[in-house]
Amino acid sequence: MADDRYIVGVDLGGTSINVGVVPFGGGPVLGMRSMPTEPGRGAKSVVDRMNGMIREAMRDARREASIPESGYVGIGIGSPGPLDRASGTVIETPNLGWRNFPLRDLIANEMGLDAVLDNDANAAALGEYWLGAGKDVDSLLALTLGTGIGGGIVLGGRVYHGASDVAGEVGHMTIDPTGRRCNCGNYGCLEAYASGPAIAARAVEGLRSGVASALPELAEGDLSEVTAETVYQAIVAGDLYAKEVMRETAAFLGTGVANLINILNPAMVVISGGVTRAGDHLFEPLRGEVRRRAFRQAADACRIVASELGDMAGVIGAAATYRVERFGELD
Amino acid sequence: MADDRYIVGVDLGGTSINVGVVPFGGGPVLGMRSMPTEPGRGAKSVVDRMNGMIREAMRDARREASIPESGYVGIGIGSPGPLDRASGTVIETPNLGWRNFPLRDLIANEMGLDAVLDNDANAAALGEYWLGAGKDVDSLLALTLGTGIGGGIVLGGRVYHGASDVAGEVGHMTIDPTGRRCNCGNYGCLEAYASGPAIAARAVEGLRSGVASALPELAEGDLSEVTAETVYQAIVAGDLYAKEVMRETAAFLGTGVANLINILNPAMVVISGGVTRAGDHLFEPLRGEVRRRAFRQAADACRIVASELGDMAGVIGAAATYRVERFGELD
Repeated sequence: MADDRYIVGVDLGGTSINVGVVPFGGGPVLGMRSMPTEPGRGAKSVVDRMNGMIREAMRDARREASIPESGYVGIGIGSPGPLDRASGTVIETPNLGWRNFPLRDLIANEMGLDAVLDNDANAAALGEYWLGAGKDVDSLLALTLGTGIGGGIVLGGRVYHGASDVAGEVGHMTIDPTGRRCNCGNYGCLEAYASGPAIAARAVEGLRSGVASALPELAEGDLSEVTAETVYQAIVAGDLYAKEVMRETAAFLGTGVANLINILNPAMVVISGGVTRAGDHLFEPLRGEVRRRAFRQAADACRIVASELGDMAGVIGAAATYRVERFGELD
Repeated sequence: MADDRYIVGVDLGGTSINVGVVPFGGGPVLGMRSMPTEPGRGAKSVVDRMNGMIREAMRDARREASIPESGYVGIGIGSPGPLDRASGTVIETPNLGWRNFPLRDLIANEMGLDAVLDNDANAAALGEYWLGAGKDVDSLLALTLGTGIGGGIVLGGRVYHGASDVAGEVGHMTIDPTGRRCNCGNYGCLEAYASGPAIAARAVEGLRSGVASALPELAEGDLSEVTAETVYQAIVAGDLYAKEVMRETAAFLGTGVANLINILNPAMVVISGGVTRAGDHLFEPLRGEVRRRAFRQAADACRIVASELGDMAGVIGAAATYRVERFGELD
């Protein structure tokens, strides 16, 4: 018998909101839509936009598949954290400027549907576990490299949340105690080396010291315009310096991933975010650094792969989060 | 009705073997004994000694309590790893010189009792969780600082083993990618800063550069005789340099513990080993470094404490390991 239950997945990020409808048993996402978050317009504007998108996604999905009125069982929401899952409250998000914000209930009440809130990186990890790169493994760790570095840990089919819902904050792992200053105020966090802005900052430092590279031209002479994206473009164009910047990024990331592998001994590490577009320029030196630094039995047991779901991981994972919370473990 | 079931706990270390009899429901260890391991005399000699100690511990315990012949349900064994739990085999222990050694069955067959094998650091962590510092928490991470640095992770009443039984190898976490060389061949492992031999080595380096300290006198003028123990003695005697060495040790250890707290968000970190005798000279700067480096929500949720069971953690934990494997979660 066909399962005509569906879950709405909502992925709230600092720059964009993604919403889609996910079949209860997995499958193609329906009614998918994406809009800019525009946090500067205030929290109410963001929540109104989210609710509007949910309404539209449900309407479109109903057209794409024949979903009965009662087919929507609930809404899973992934949000930047830290957050309190029990109350559905976002405790703090510097990017959105929210504090103790009751996001879950503002959506559930408006939509008249049950909702569940979890961290966006946790949701993405659960998405990859359910329908992505990790669908054949028992445990995985997912790292999302973007403006920051987020992490989610899935053990035995469930997100591991820790004692206060903040497990997996891998971006602020110290990899060099007297190293680069991080936005969090500390020195030597992984995020200060391998996030998008950190990759760009490291690249520009070398350019200022006069190294030859196609990067300045790609940035039309304005070094402040160099981004991680510019670095990928330069790699594609064969730029040796950009490749070296990526090799260094891979070494820093490999140090962090080796630590995670030594500690958690996962079957898989899934890397997502724009940086994965560097492909082998990232993954080959990354795996090499991990082999050098990780315990052999742990490194041998772990595959390090790129995300399969890409931007869809958040929406699929948010829906998976709802399903796990209300119906127990995924198949 | 009194529970007259008992479990034998065996803690095999590089320098000593500890064996005792643990009541199924917890309680004082009976028939406790400790002997040197003397690995140089060969694997057979070590196993014969272990079996002899188990026999004696069971006999003595039967005298101390009135244990029926059928009262011994099984044997839990904690051993240096890595090991394969399913086959009960020690894959490799540099300290004992063993490789693919079927320790569990060599004991089970000789004693005619069912046996279970796990990593010694995992056993110690489960011991602290069951009857020690962690008896009121759901999740903990236990670090044992000795010749090396071992770690064990307990989540929801069970040891978390990972994909290939080597989760918790925290000693080889990189805290400084270009730092001190570790015995494992890498650079900047936590173990290269905060193990007993590393503490001694760092202390001696300062002494060779001419710093004033009571340490040379305590080592009778022979700096090669300085050990972590000598550093504790000097601290007790009020030596400022020894206190500084401990403060640095605490900072390195705090960097590693902050990483673990960011990743795992445990309710408790339990530290054991000789280094805890430094008391506040260790724990105060350690907690300070963690507060500086860890995510606030994670640091606030985590107590960092000294082991309560001390040398008994291994024996109690080995018995607990048996109980969990065969009878499910502890109370």
